[in-house]
Amino acid sequence: MEEIVEELLTDRILTAVKNRNAKELKEIFEVTPNIDIAEALDEVEDAAVFLYIFRTVNSEYTSDFFTELTNEQQEMIINAFTDKQLIELLDNSFADDIVDALEEMPANVVARVLKACPADLRKDVNNLLNYKDNTAGSVMTTEYLDMKDTLTVKEALKIIRQRGKDAETVYTVFVRDSKRNLMGTINLDDLIFAKDDEILSDVMDRDFVTCNVNDDQEEVANMFKRYDLNAMAVVNNENKIIGIITIDDVVDIIVEEATEDIAHLNQISNMDEPYLKTPVIKLVLKCVPWILILIVLQMFSTLIISRFEGAIASLTLLSFFMSLVTDAGGNAGGQTTTLIVRSISLDEFGRGDFKRVIWKEFRVALCIAGIVGAFAFAWILFETSVGIANVAESIKGVQEAHPGWNMSELSVKLVVSGLIAATLFVAMIVSRMVACMLPFLAKAFRLDPAVVCGPFTTTLVDVITLLTYFLLWTFVFGPMLGL
Amino acid sequence: MEEIVEELLTDRILTAVKNRNAKELKEIFEVTPNIDIAEALDEVEDAAVFLYIFRTVNSEYTSDFFTELTNEQQEMIINAFTDKQLIELLDNSFADDIVDALEEMPANVVARVLKACPADLRKDVNNLLNYKDNTAGSVMTTEYLDMKDTLTVKEALKIIRQRGKDAETVYTVFVRDSKRNLMGTINLDDLIFAKDDEILSDVMDRDFVTCNVNDDQEEVANMFKRYDLNAMAVVNNENKIIGIITIDDVVDIIVEEATEDIAHLNQISNMDEPYLKTPVIKLVLKCVPWILILIVLQMFSTLIISRFEGAIASLTLLSFFMSLVTDAGGNAGGQTTTLIVRSISLDEFGRGDFKRVIWKEFRVALCIAGIVGAFAFAWILFETSVGIANVAESIKGVQEAHPGWNMSELSVKLVVSGLIAATLFVAMIVSRMVACMLPFLAKAFRLDPAVVCGPFTTTLVDVITLLTYFLLWTFVFGPMLGL
Repeated sequence: MEEIVEELLTDRILTAVKNRNAKELKEIFEVTPNIDIAEALDEVEDAAVFLYIFRTVNSEYTSDFFTELTNEQQEMIINAFTDKQLIELLDNSFADDIVDALEEMPANVVARVLKACPADLRKDVNNLLNYKDNTAGSVMTTEYLDMKDTLTVKEALKIIRQRGKDAETVYTVFVRDSKRNLMGTINLDDLIFAKDDEILSDVMDRDFVTCNVNDDQEEVANMFKRYDLNAMAVVNNENKIIGIITIDDVVDIIVEEATEDIAHLNQISNMDEPYLKTPVIKLVLKCVPWILILIVLQMFSTLIISRFEGAIASLTLLSFFMSLVTDAGGNAGGQTTTLIVRSISLDEFGRGDFKRVIWKEFRVALCIAGIVGAFAFAWILFETSVGIANVAESIKGVQEAHPGWNMSELSVKLVVSGLIAATLFVAMIVSRMVACMLPFLAKAFRLDPAVVCGPFTTTLVDVITLLTYFLLWTFVFGPMLGL
Repeated sequence: MEEIVEELLTDRILTAVKNRNAKELKEIFEVTPNIDIAEALDEVEDAAVFLYIFRTVNSEYTSDFFTELTNEQQEMIINAFTDKQLIELLDNSFADDIVDALEEMPANVVARVLKACPADLRKDVNNLLNYKDNTAGSVMTTEYLDMKDTLTVKEALKIIRQRGKDAETVYTVFVRDSKRNLMGTINLDDLIFAKDDEILSDVMDRDFVTCNVNDDQEEVANMFKRYDLNAMAVVNNENKIIGIITIDDVVDIIVEEATEDIAHLNQISNMDEPYLKTPVIKLVLKCVPWILILIVLQMFSTLIISRFEGAIASLTLLSFFMSLVTDAGGNAGGQTTTLIVRSISLDEFGRGDFKRVIWKEFRVALCIAGIVGAFAFAWILFETSVGIANVAESIKGVQEAHPGWNMSELSVKLVVSGLIAATLFVAMIVSRMVACMLPFLAKAFRLDPAVVCGPFTTTLVDVITLLTYFLLWTFVFGPMLGL
């Protein structure tokens, strides 16, 4: 929402609260989404404002309002509420939303909230708090509708009308047999379209899918995408349904996982909060370790350059192109890592696809190496000819060190262009092959490919490229110039 | 799905088709999601298999099956179908799914499909085919339920039962007045919970949001996330509803947009197909241009190094650390670009936030610069002391060129460590500041920040870092050593 509109909204709400204008306040809540109101009030630190809002506006219009507020505001409100008000607020919330809010709060607030929860809700909340982060259990909700497969459609609709308001979704109903085994699912629209006296087991979908409570949330999200689901049952190890996950939670998971991939591939730790809401110190900690690791790993490059100091001293021209070959190699490696890591995240590879990937990547690398090598030869010839890289100066240096050495400027240009083209040819192939194997290796060791591959690919590729560069010079191209 | 299960499924289906075992085939379709069947058959190129499937299995179970097949298979089936079969297939599909399939097909197939479409469906398909890619119009569907605000709940439910099967979703009903202005939305569950004789205008939500048909799909996805929507109305410039977008399409958009961000930030063109399904030549074309651009842009680095050839010649030690400083600078810049580009994608910044970002980034950069500078000083002192970088050899070179020059090894180590620490200090601040401004600049010029910022940040940061390195050497640290 544009800032100017937001400011107007803030003013309208605060004025309505100040004037105790209940009618205006109700009207605002009726026509404005809760998230917009919460954002308009995100700098309000006066608990009395919120107390008045919750007391005045019908809970039908404030049901999500509490969960959209900032953690500080939620804590403030919980502390300002009487026990009775707290119970009322919790009664209108779903267990998984309460858990999301509690996870950020101090222990004493958590204790007070749990005490205020009705017994069954408390049990649900306690359960959910115990699941490991990023598992299906941690994102599921325990408030769903399940029905026996012997019910009729009419009975099912009656139950939905009675119990549906407490369920996170009524769009998918879970059908079980008398032993609580999940037998199928029914979408609400199918119930509406079905005849009143049909039996659930005849109208339910039997091609449903489920996930285990310990499954990674990323796998769950991939299943939602694959099967176009609205809701999915979460089962325990005995295959009994213990909760459900709904599509709105999955949207958040997908954004979260994609953001994590983007961050790790670009060597930042998890970006779990919006940029402007992340404290400076947290941003520093997200970035600094990766830079320090890179500086340390760079010692391998330094080591190689240092060992070939003689080559650089003999022809300083060589030092002009080191960053070109390492950057181009790193670029090619990074591209491959990105392609492979993304495909792994999206669960595109099955068993045995490793070999197909290697073979495909080899052919791609060969083509790219050919094109880049040819282009680089022409381009470096151009750079040295127009004086972007000053060849004459380098030649003067050689002549000072080796009196009597006389190679034409053209032969130096041709040899150096050939060296860079050959180095890039090798670097493209090797760096792409290495970069496409690393993510699989990381996955085999159950490490996050995106975290591992970022810094290691860069370093490995730098080392390989520099070694290629100097070895080709020492044994092939240097001798051509008598150096 | 694991490959072994998939193979079993392929065998079961093909055997059932071969033996004309209709019962087995129906059972498979009843208990297996369409996408799993489509994938099990993704290498089948025999149109007869699909003809038998579509003839045998109830269309209720094959409604999504056609859209899950590969483009080649779809084309093959359309060509093999009689007009009557084609009409039946199209009757069971939604306009937006048909459009998705048609967009990849040759013109003669498109013409034949359009001819077979019933008149109203053809109009919808034709309309959808005309919207620009990545706009709300290109992803919306025209099959939705709208009702007048004067209807009762009972009448509304009756209409849903009658017309709901042709709508993409019945979970959200759009309520309009007699002039076709959108007045509100009602979720199906609210209809179920409401009393039969209530009037729609009394039970509808008035705090709905809409998007314009020309809005970017990324904005649409952000609205779904923000407002937790199941479906959203798409309006034209006169604010009349002309279509809707549903959450399942949005899930695809989110994945697509995140993948696009990942690709562009890591300098690959759009990854619109799974890796293994992308032809080699297409992968080459996605990657090669970025590498060539980088090689060309690297001329600026080459130019700088070449102009400071004298500095390198005077102390070859300097060439050891060039890739360290440029890589670390590039890393820091890349981190910032990633943070900012992602936040822009997720629509986190409002009007006027630019200044807040710059100020925050400056503080973050200052902290990082301090830490990295201090660490680098210690680390380079270590590298030069244990011989990873060979200082003695460099000193010998200096002494040959300047007889009489005698600085202790320790002072050379300290000065070089200081040079690198100072360079990194400056590079961290400048590269982060540049990298955080570039995405906003790109956005102001309506360019995709992720596309523009990748190669330019690297080059700009390289140039700045190398200039800093050599200028600090020439005017500050070199003179300390009398060089």
